[in-house]
Amino acid sequence: MDPQEQTQQTALAEIGEFGLIALMRETLGESEDESVVSGIADDAAVYRTGGERVHVLTTDTLVEGVHFDRAFMPLEHLGFKALSVNVSDVVAMNATPRYATVSIGIPQNVSVEMVTTIYEGLKQACNAYDMHIVGGDTNASHGLSLSISVVGAADEDEVVYRRGAQVGDKICVTGDIGASYAGLKVLLHNRERLQEQEENFQPDLDPYSYVIRRHLAPPAQLTVIRDWADAGAQPRSLIDISDGLSAEVHHICEASDVGAQLYEPALPIDPETRNTATEFEEDVTVYALFGGEDYELAFTTPEDDLETLDPQTYTVVGEVVAPEEKEEPVTIQRANGQTIPLQPGGFDHFADSPPGQ
Amino acid sequence: MDPQEQTQQTALAEIGEFGLIALMRETLGESEDESVVSGIADDAAVYRTGGERVHVLTTDTLVEGVHFDRAFMPLEHLGFKALSVNVSDVVAMNATPRYATVSIGIPQNVSVEMVTTIYEGLKQACNAYDMHIVGGDTNASHGLSLSISVVGAADEDEVVYRRGAQVGDKICVTGDIGASYAGLKVLLHNRERLQEQEENFQPDLDPYSYVIRRHLAPPAQLTVIRDWADAGAQPRSLIDISDGLSAEVHHICEASDVGAQLYEPALPIDPETRNTATEFEEDVTVYALFGGEDYELAFTTPEDDLETLDPQTYTVVGEVVAPEEKEEPVTIQRANGQTIPLQPGGFDHFADSPPGQ
Repeated sequence: MDPQEQTQQTALAEIGEFGLIALMRETLGESEDESVVSGIADDAAVYRTGGERVHVLTTDTLVEGVHFDRAFMPLEHLGFKALSVNVSDVVAMNATPRYATVSIGIPQNVSVEMVTTIYEGLKQACNAYDMHIVGGDTNASHGLSLSISVVGAADEDEVVYRRGAQVGDKICVTGDIGASYAGLKVLLHNRERLQEQEENFQPDLDPYSYVIRRHLAPPAQLTVIRDWADAGAQPRSLIDISDGLSAEVHHICEASDVGAQLYEPALPIDPETRNTATEFEEDVTVYALFGGEDYELAFTTPEDDLETLDPQTYTVVGEVVAPEEKEEPVTIQRANGQTIPLQPGGFDHFADSPPGQ
Repeated sequence: MDPQEQTQQTALAEIGEFGLIALMRETLGESEDESVVSGIADDAAVYRTGGERVHVLTTDTLVEGVHFDRAFMPLEHLGFKALSVNVSDVVAMNATPRYATVSIGIPQNVSVEMVTTIYEGLKQACNAYDMHIVGGDTNASHGLSLSISVVGAADEDEVVYRRGAQVGDKICVTGDIGASYAGLKVLLHNRERLQEQEENFQPDLDPYSYVIRRHLAPPAQLTVIRDWADAGAQPRSLIDISDGLSAEVHHICEASDVGAQLYEPALPIDPETRNTATEFEEDVTVYALFGGEDYELAFTTPEDDLETLDPQTYTVVGEVVAPEEKEEPVTIQRANGQTIPLQPGGFDHFADSPPGQ
């Protein structure tokens, strides 16, 4: 196909990011190499390295103006977050992150000192996750960008995929959700007021310190999977919450050919997240289901296996159900007892305009 | 360090790309993990995966307006080239490429059909190199960009580094050099004439088909290292020619603590490259030494070991010498018999303004 030809062209918005990934999988074809355990289908790829061991490989990019705003993202946090989002994908396979490469795109208005600060954030993340940056690449670029690849390691039978959920499993999430989106709302609101040069406006971010930190420097949940390993526990399906809980539960349902029922009152939401949503006169459940960038884990496991886990580390938010029970694979029971279908990335019953970044 | 502070800021141009890589190495520190055989020091990182096996990992990005011009880079070639430049780094460690991830940045003026064409180019490259794209990531972006990471495999004692050159080794290159830069010159010249809407101008690219192909779709030299393996041969030092032969020989000398003497008449240059330089009234030796993007291999090996190699596959272009013999680590003997020092990235004796992109 010649791109210069004036043939019918389809806008990317029509198929979206998930459509583009599906297009890549279709165009390239599934690998039939026996060493490839899992390709473009999960949070990270899995391939055998000999014996029982496998490595997992993932890549993720943060782009200025798309994933972050340099006006309120300290560069040290940017380095930390760029590595964290990749580590989160490795952890979401129940694997241990080991090695990373960093490809950094640098515009002309970024100085050597600023790049050093980004590297320092990367180093902090390396120390936090006990891993090693082994390679790098720098390029001139229109906007600042950080493209990182991470290799992780596991025994082949330790790896947990999206596809393992079974009817009757409890659906659980670690930590709390919706805080990152609440933090983003506060940061955007303050930037707006600063830009409008509102008289006597002094941003007071103290009441929002938790939600802002969750947005700027979210940690990957490596300690959770270490605790599981210590307890001899292993969930049946696992994913990290980068696009919002609703999207991730839909991913698990699609990969596992099951349905899911969530319970709104059970969603773990920090009081600061609730307060922020109240101040913006918005429904905090929307933050929790669709906000994204929490980098907590969602997993499913039989109820009996939950006994082996520290109850401080997770919350049961729903149950895996048979797919034929209803048209919509995922439903949610609201606080008023009403059960309604849930869309992956938008929720008309909760908000006229679902949050998007 | 707070980037918001009005402290002294250093422009990136002052330290350059190699300075930025050194800065990354300094800020992050060398890894002391025993599984890391080699970090940020060569074409790719090397880490142990168990037993005698190691994996190598490299990452490289092509950015629109920096590394390519969409006006004359067919998107299929872009996909092919983006994978090739990464495979070349793996081959430059004497390792076999296995798995890749692709992170693609897509601006609004790129359609689904255009992305499909890029994926088709990636697929061609996967087939050519017998490897597998196992993961992907797509992002909105200001310009088109392709950031690729490749994992390769080798036995630990098969890996060849930049640092192994010894005094007396012959310096060799595979294939021919300078053609990619000649192709770029032709493409830039034609674009200029088209933009000026020169009357009756019809580009005739037939006489330049080889050099243009070398610029748009350079193959990585995987067959060369396979031939070496079949012959039981292994060079002492090895690097791929991405930044021009002069820069690469300087890298080998620095890593190996040796000097080098090159012979201008020996440089392998295709007749089409010579003709192109003649038409532009430029010195073809400048193309060969500083043009870059050839993705051939430069290696050093004892003279006796050359007998095991197919003489069709390489050219001897110089010799490794003791570092203390002269101030400049690399010199070149010109066709007129005069020996002069060689700079890594510019050559005042050959050209007033060395080529740059």
